[in-house]
Amino acid sequence: MTARSPLAPRSQPRLPALSGVRLAVCETGIKYKNRPDLMVALLDPGTTIAGVLTRSRTRSAPVDLCAENLKTGSARAIIVNAGNANAFTGRHGIKTVATTVKAAAKAFDCKPDEVFVASTGVIGEPLDPGAIVGAFAALGAEAGPGRWRDAAAAIMTTDTFPKSATATAKIGSRTVTINGIAKGSGMIAPDMATMLSFIFTDAALPPGILQKLLSRAAATSFNAITVDSDTSTSDTVLLCATGARKDRLQNLRSPGDARLKSFTKALNQVMRELAHLVVRDGEGAEKLISITVKGAASEPAARRIGMAIANSPLVKTAIAGEDANWGRIVMAVGKSGEEANRDKLSIWIGGQRVARGGMADPKYREAQITKHMRSREIDIIVDVGVGKSSFTVWTCDLTHRYIEINADYRS
Amino acid sequence: MTARSPLAPRSQPRLPALSGVRLAVCETGIKYKNRPDLMVALLDPGTTIAGVLTRSRTRSAPVDLCAENLKTGSARAIIVNAGNANAFTGRHGIKTVATTVKAAAKAFDCKPDEVFVASTGVIGEPLDPGAIVGAFAALGAEAGPGRWRDAAAAIMTTDTFPKSATATAKIGSRTVTINGIAKGSGMIAPDMATMLSFIFTDAALPPGILQKLLSRAAATSFNAITVDSDTSTSDTVLLCATGARKDRLQNLRSPGDARLKSFTKALNQVMRELAHLVVRDGEGAEKLISITVKGAASEPAARRIGMAIANSPLVKTAIAGEDANWGRIVMAVGKSGEEANRDKLSIWIGGQRVARGGMADPKYREAQITKHMRSREIDIIVDVGVGKSSFTVWTCDLTHRYIEINADYRS
Repeated sequence: MTARSPLAPRSQPRLPALSGVRLAVCETGIKYKNRPDLMVALLDPGTTIAGVLTRSRTRSAPVDLCAENLKTGSARAIIVNAGNANAFTGRHGIKTVATTVKAAAKAFDCKPDEVFVASTGVIGEPLDPGAIVGAFAALGAEAGPGRWRDAAAAIMTTDTFPKSATATAKIGSRTVTINGIAKGSGMIAPDMATMLSFIFTDAALPPGILQKLLSRAAATSFNAITVDSDTSTSDTVLLCATGARKDRLQNLRSPGDARLKSFTKALNQVMRELAHLVVRDGEGAEKLISITVKGAASEPAARRIGMAIANSPLVKTAIAGEDANWGRIVMAVGKSGEEANRDKLSIWIGGQRVARGGMADPKYREAQITKHMRSREIDIIVDVGVGKSSFTVWTCDLTHRYIEINADYRS
Repeated sequence: MTARSPLAPRSQPRLPALSGVRLAVCETGIKYKNRPDLMVALLDPGTTIAGVLTRSRTRSAPVDLCAENLKTGSARAIIVNAGNANAFTGRHGIKTVATTVKAAAKAFDCKPDEVFVASTGVIGEPLDPGAIVGAFAALGAEAGPGRWRDAAAAIMTTDTFPKSATATAKIGSRTVTINGIAKGSGMIAPDMATMLSFIFTDAALPPGILQKLLSRAAATSFNAITVDSDTSTSDTVLLCATGARKDRLQNLRSPGDARLKSFTKALNQVMRELAHLVVRDGEGAEKLISITVKGAASEPAARRIGMAIANSPLVKTAIAGEDANWGRIVMAVGKSGEEANRDKLSIWIGGQRVARGGMADPKYREAQITKHMRSREIDIIVDVGVGKSSFTVWTCDLTHRYIEINADYRS
């Protein structure tokens, strides 16, 4: 295990037990030694589920399975292994998933289409289901409500710290809880940016509404981050609602229903917190970078400009070098292909305007920005001067450590 | 000056004098000390010109000027300075270009719309034209036909070696020559991938035909390379035909005319050679990587898949680490967004098939590939299994040296 990221939070929140969810972990020895690498989440009958999956054209067999089973909107078990992604493993990989699902349905007394599988780790190596299904009996017996910390740790690969977040919300007169865990460090890019995240609530919500709430929250959290522009074959976010905290909501038809306001806010908060934790654990990351693009022609345009800046190796290395090299930000705006007015472009770093009206701000003093560039959290705002839309994305810097991790590690 | 790239060619070709082109260089001291940083190419009356320019939305004032003057199709002088890109310099930058053009027209006795300007170097710093225009009288007096080596050296910025190429061709009964120089090392990406290249021929060709020949050749040379995915604000390729070697071609209407076959081939060769030299001098490059995508739905699709692989930090760092981590190639194919059949995908590295039918090739032995991974030139072929189109792109690996260069250097 490599050293904990310098951007890791000081402490991990303590997630409360969540009625309707039981968790268990164990060591399979498939790739890692002396650490849990298999996690199961067992869900009470009646649990609804929604998901957001990678848009990769070479997605893994487990992602295919999730896409298929999400159609039912119902979940009883989630099986997650770390160390082998079961991606690009052909017929063998499909069979491994089928065997896992069949055994899980039997062990956990549910239907096969209520079982979800996620795998993360090396691509292209066959994954034998033996060690996984062999553990189900013990996992089923051990599963308990309070093992969130173990669950978050068991799904890690190159992560340097476990990632979890929690919030409460009001639905009607009931207080409901949202607990989430995530993993991800490299191969983190737009279009489902995290590798894996599992979020649970004891609220009672129909799968259609759940899906819309999840997709919307993903757009400004997991889909607004990038570490290295590389989209994983295995990205999976699942949101489960156990319904243990039954509310009295009648005729809930739209995710925009005022009665869901508190829940939506809490869900957005949990997902954004998890997404930021993934960036904070970006491979080699030493700085968390927030990039807000405003004055864009549309929100998608603002997002694409933001991502062009966030994915630029020249911008990321300049920030690693603590150099306020805003010329590279201008370059990245230009390469995005989106509408921008070169002669109205303004840029702020750490709240100080460095460029305006298409050239360096004459009042800008580099010494004042140097202090900001030396801090752990870098704040960039770019006004592209053509419209009124804005979007914020988050990324990390590109350091020697990223090269070390990825030139030496077969992941 | 940093050490010469390990991928640099052993020797530089000796370019012959080219009738109708005179070159001169000098030191302005604008940024660099004790090295020439200003180059002028003076062209005989009747010279035609074509150009391919950056598609950046924040392109520089000199690129704006080139776009405008290319409309006339006629050229008498090209002025190039290194060290300051005169990009994102607002009204001041536009004025600098206007002053330069006016002074050049006077000094070199031509019309202002026959003057072309290219600047490369730091973005966002005002460029004073004084030192440039002040040198014109001396440059005009010194300009001679044989100074190709000096010209190639004067336009360098972070380049570690000068880049030039030459070829001859037959047009009718005449033998014509093509000489080209280029510079570029970082901020090298698709959509006009080099920063600057100037190509000259003594052939007589109308500007319309010249433009089509240049655009076609650029598609598979400069626009088929990437170092770091970052598109420059200043990318400029100009092709000048002095017409000194007058042919007898009548009614030349199409670039596909059989009488241009030899010339087209030679032009493609020179431009591809220059493009490869830019990749060989990619910042921190230790390996030249060729990526051929075949079995794609269309040629643009094949190019986009190739560029997704070539720009993937995870693929580039794996190659830097001499690791045949083809799982990352699968990932990059998937993230391209282009059609690919996961279960028919095949991958060859160094001529050996490592994956086929959507999984690892059972006959693949990693030890056999290790030797290829240790060599300077890495060859990757990917068949995406959906169609018949193919495209080849070139890139370099991503090393510690790239981080060193870009985290420390304000370019």
